[in-house]
Amino acid sequence: MKTLSILGSTGSVGRNCLKVTEDLAPEFRVVALAAGRNIKELTEQIRRFRPVLVSVSSREARDELKQSLMDLSPSNRPKIATGPEGLLEVATLPETDLVVSAIVGVAGLAPTFQAIKSGKNIALANKEILVVGGELITKAARSREVQLIPVDSEHNAIHQCLRCGKLEEVRQVILTASGGPFRNLPVEQLSRVTPEMALRHPTWKMGNRITIDSATMMNKGLEILEACWLFDLKVDQISVLVHPQSIIHSLVEFVDGSLVAQLGVTDMQQPIHYALNYPLRMPRSGHSLDLSQIGKLEFMEADSEKFPCLDLAYQAAYHQGALPCTLNAADEVAVDAFLQRKISFSEIPRIVAKMMAEYNGKSKFSSVGEILEYDEIVRKETYRLIQTDFI
Amino acid sequence: MKTLSILGSTGSVGRNCLKVTEDLAPEFRVVALAAGRNIKELTEQIRRFRPVLVSVSSREARDELKQSLMDLSPSNRPKIATGPEGLLEVATLPETDLVVSAIVGVAGLAPTFQAIKSGKNIALANKEILVVGGELITKAARSREVQLIPVDSEHNAIHQCLRCGKLEEVRQVILTASGGPFRNLPVEQLSRVTPEMALRHPTWKMGNRITIDSATMMNKGLEILEACWLFDLKVDQISVLVHPQSIIHSLVEFVDGSLVAQLGVTDMQQPIHYALNYPLRMPRSGHSLDLSQIGKLEFMEADSEKFPCLDLAYQAAYHQGALPCTLNAADEVAVDAFLQRKISFSEIPRIVAKMMAEYNGKSKFSSVGEILEYDEIVRKETYRLIQTDFI
Repeated sequence: MKTLSILGSTGSVGRNCLKVTEDLAPEFRVVALAAGRNIKELTEQIRRFRPVLVSVSSREARDELKQSLMDLSPSNRPKIATGPEGLLEVATLPETDLVVSAIVGVAGLAPTFQAIKSGKNIALANKEILVVGGELITKAARSREVQLIPVDSEHNAIHQCLRCGKLEEVRQVILTASGGPFRNLPVEQLSRVTPEMALRHPTWKMGNRITIDSATMMNKGLEILEACWLFDLKVDQISVLVHPQSIIHSLVEFVDGSLVAQLGVTDMQQPIHYALNYPLRMPRSGHSLDLSQIGKLEFMEADSEKFPCLDLAYQAAYHQGALPCTLNAADEVAVDAFLQRKISFSEIPRIVAKMMAEYNGKSKFSSVGEILEYDEIVRKETYRLIQTDFI
Repeated sequence: MKTLSILGSTGSVGRNCLKVTEDLAPEFRVVALAAGRNIKELTEQIRRFRPVLVSVSSREARDELKQSLMDLSPSNRPKIATGPEGLLEVATLPETDLVVSAIVGVAGLAPTFQAIKSGKNIALANKEILVVGGELITKAARSREVQLIPVDSEHNAIHQCLRCGKLEEVRQVILTASGGPFRNLPVEQLSRVTPEMALRHPTWKMGNRITIDSATMMNKGLEILEACWLFDLKVDQISVLVHPQSIIHSLVEFVDGSLVAQLGVTDMQQPIHYALNYPLRMPRSGHSLDLSQIGKLEFMEADSEKFPCLDLAYQAAYHQGALPCTLNAADEVAVDAFLQRKISFSEIPRIVAKMMAEYNGKSKFSSVGEILEYDEIVRKETYRLIQTDFI
């Protein structure tokens, strides 16, 4: 039996993760949950999974949760922690084997880092952690011999494919991308894209930022950065292939010219199931992929003129230092401004590029605190840039 | 450095194998070659690779070879063996690590079996050996802890994909098939197919029997039988998927619903390269697959009404015993009769089915000799059947 802490239990990855552990019972025991403000959902999760510890964002949320658990006998009520300390407590709980890192954004960095330092294996669903803190995180993981098992479908696919050879036998990794909703839109029409148009993702249903990032292909850019750290690859070993059906989740080409691909239905539970069970594979029913029914898979080059975010990400990956952090923070603020109709769709990459030109001095981060501080500065300055130059 | 014996060095697999070892020099040393009657090609191979032992089919061939090597100094001339004993000598040469089994047909059975019994690893290119002698061969391989590494692209692909999990984690193996030249031909026109039409294979250039077997899909049927033994699978774990582009060479579905596929250009040297180097992967330049250039991959169900050979093979795989041997021998004779225009294309499966209905009594073979004897009887009787009922 594996014991689990879930950081971000009420988000879509967290909820799917709990669903998977239920399907796999009694292989897993959920011992700790961290959520934000969705107390209703968390209450249900506590009743179903009986964790010993939960964490919520604030004291108000804690009081609300306490109220909603009043009918439980005291022995069935979890300890309730709060705020950033609560997250750390959930991440480092001694009885936990595996921590699911599914809090969105840089908020996941500190607890995931501490989980690693406590020797917990990590099922990693957070995109930004490795982008901004790749060096710190992977160094800590190596020194504690901790496994980082990716939960997003592309890196999970690569994790699977890499089993077909040794790391030094890898020629390149090919991240597939759906190409987003504007794959076929002429480049000159991109500036007229509305938030509603951009939020219609062709194959995956996801959160707002990641959906817009898919439309700009910044999402794929962040995945390039993530893959570098996760699999110890050089930037030029990573390429992007547009594959609208999202059936091939990614590929690895080995030095002998042989390619290995992982395929599956577009179902978030599949990579979660893999990550939770790794190194084993456990049976999962009723989710077979029938290629003859799908009929065809298409592939095309990524258009870097139409999607300048890809080149920005490559640039950040080449130079590293603070650039990936700048890219990520500036993009998040710009996406937010786009969703609020303050800027146009094609201004997102322009804003990111402007910020990267300015915030590129730092060569290395030596602590999580330093990263978060830098991240905060870039966010503020991006916001200011948008206010002054773009509105 | 690995030392190599090649059974069938002047055939297409043998020649490609030598090419691969040249590219990989000094990793490999070719110590023994067995050829049939192509003395000109064998002479060139001897001059290039300096084996210590060669084998040819007959004394006449030996004398011809001796003549053509007269100009070599005696210390550079290999020992020349002949006939079936010569094959065994090449297969069991003490200084050989790996035997490439690339003689076509059941003639490869005895030397490959002896090579395994001498503890040699096998790069297996011969299709029939496992079909007719699967149990004997795999039992011997297990007891000598010998590796059987498949060289044909489909099984080689499966061998690669299986590295992504354990054998007991496999749900099914999916063999891809180009579908042959008659994939789109209406079933009622199959009887009018000529040898010339059937010899035009859409993606691979191969020998005559295997090309006709591709057109009837018997080739895929033989691969089902081969896969059962090679990977220790149950028949119902093996399915066939038509994929005209032959880019995905085969797939494995694991119990968690995840599929892993191996892809590559249609180049025989790729799987040979893999098999010779296994468990390592060595660099191979200039053979990358560019999916964006290929554009699309198509998939469809195999039409078992149009290609009854598939069902015949499944039947043989379910019942085992002598049935696979009957299927293989009857098919080879029937294909030959078709090429000689004695029977029509759609009579091939009818003849095989008739023979299978008759020659199905034996439940198990206990020796290679017994298999060869049975094979000979089925061939003779198939020939007789064709003479009496079909001409």
